[in-house]
Amino acid sequence: MQKLRIAVDMDEVIADMHGAKLAWLTERFGYEWKEHLLVGKNVRDLIDPAHAAALDEHLHLGEFFGDLQIIDGSVEALRELNARHDLFITTAAMEFPLSLRHKWDWLRRNMPFLDPLNIVFCGRKDIVCADFLIDDSPRHFERFIGQGILFSAPHNALETRYPRLASWNDAAHVLTELSSRRQS
Amino acid sequence: MQKLRIAVDMDEVIADMHGAKLAWLTERFGYEWKEHLLVGKNVRDLIDPAHAAALDEHLHLGEFFGDLQIIDGSVEALRELNARHDLFITTAAMEFPLSLRHKWDWLRRNMPFLDPLNIVFCGRKDIVCADFLIDDSPRHFERFIGQGILFSAPHNALETRYPRLASWNDAAHVLTELSSRRQS
Repeated sequence: MQKLRIAVDMDEVIADMHGAKLAWLTERFGYEWKEHLLVGKNVRDLIDPAHAAALDEHLHLGEFFGDLQIIDGSVEALRELNARHDLFITTAAMEFPLSLRHKWDWLRRNMPFLDPLNIVFCGRKDIVCADFLIDDSPRHFERFIGQGILFSAPHNALETRYPRLASWNDAAHVLTELSSRRQS
Repeated sequence: MQKLRIAVDMDEVIADMHGAKLAWLTERFGYEWKEHLLVGKNVRDLIDPAHAAALDEHLHLGEFFGDLQIIDGSVEALRELNARHDLFITTAAMEFPLSLRHKWDWLRRNMPFLDPLNIVFCGRKDIVCADFLIDDSPRHFERFIGQGILFSAPHNALETRYPRLASWNDAAHVLTELSSRRQS
């Protein structure tokens, strides 16, 4: 396979933002989560608006982003992709500017093999110039110059417009297939 | 003129990094600067390596980036470009990660008309997808997908490979001309 430029999102793709939000809401407000109720929904649409505001306030402090768990298999998959391809991390950070430093620390600590010059903190992702963008938010694909690949998360379970990566174990296979389709 | 995607660098293009470095070196180590000696040179090549290391240490603290003066005419020119085009700020921040927050504050304070979602903190700028990139460092143009425009600074005075913006007063004129050349 030729060398590809691959951009990978951070929250809910390599860093478990979703799980941390659910845990915080449970600890703070006592929510219990039923998996089937999260399908196709954003968490904030399922909770009291005052609790959503409290969550936002907490996110704005920034530290939340430095403590996220790693999404299963992402370290191994990204190490592999980084060795074969031109890998970038492209993460929307401008909504929570105090997250910048913590996202940086998270990446350096958990993915030390990534070249810091290949880290991109942005807002709109149509500014990203890459062959593939692996992201959990389909809105980023609408004006993206390359091929979007949806990383599966409960909130995007009903989205059908884009190829999908269900777990990091499938990454090499999915990229090989999509890449050969693009060339033919 | 059709709507263009224009990416603009920060240090030495809208924020006076160069002037601030010279002033810091003068204050700290007593340097006196002769303009003609700076032509085609990076400041760090003209100073004692121990002083360059002290400057780097100071830059790593990050606050330096929040106090930079505005480059002449940049606020007015960017306000105008932002009204007519799709304007992004694309700044290399990964060498000094503690600068991130201060660069953010600088942009919000001095260019409040910019959409925060159009701010990009990156390292390599070939990840930027735009029609034009206005930057003082020609190395960023080598693999850039669009047309690089060199913003004049003493260190790039001898560079001849790219069209040049000598001051922000010429921005509308230069962009109109380059844009019509690209379409024909």
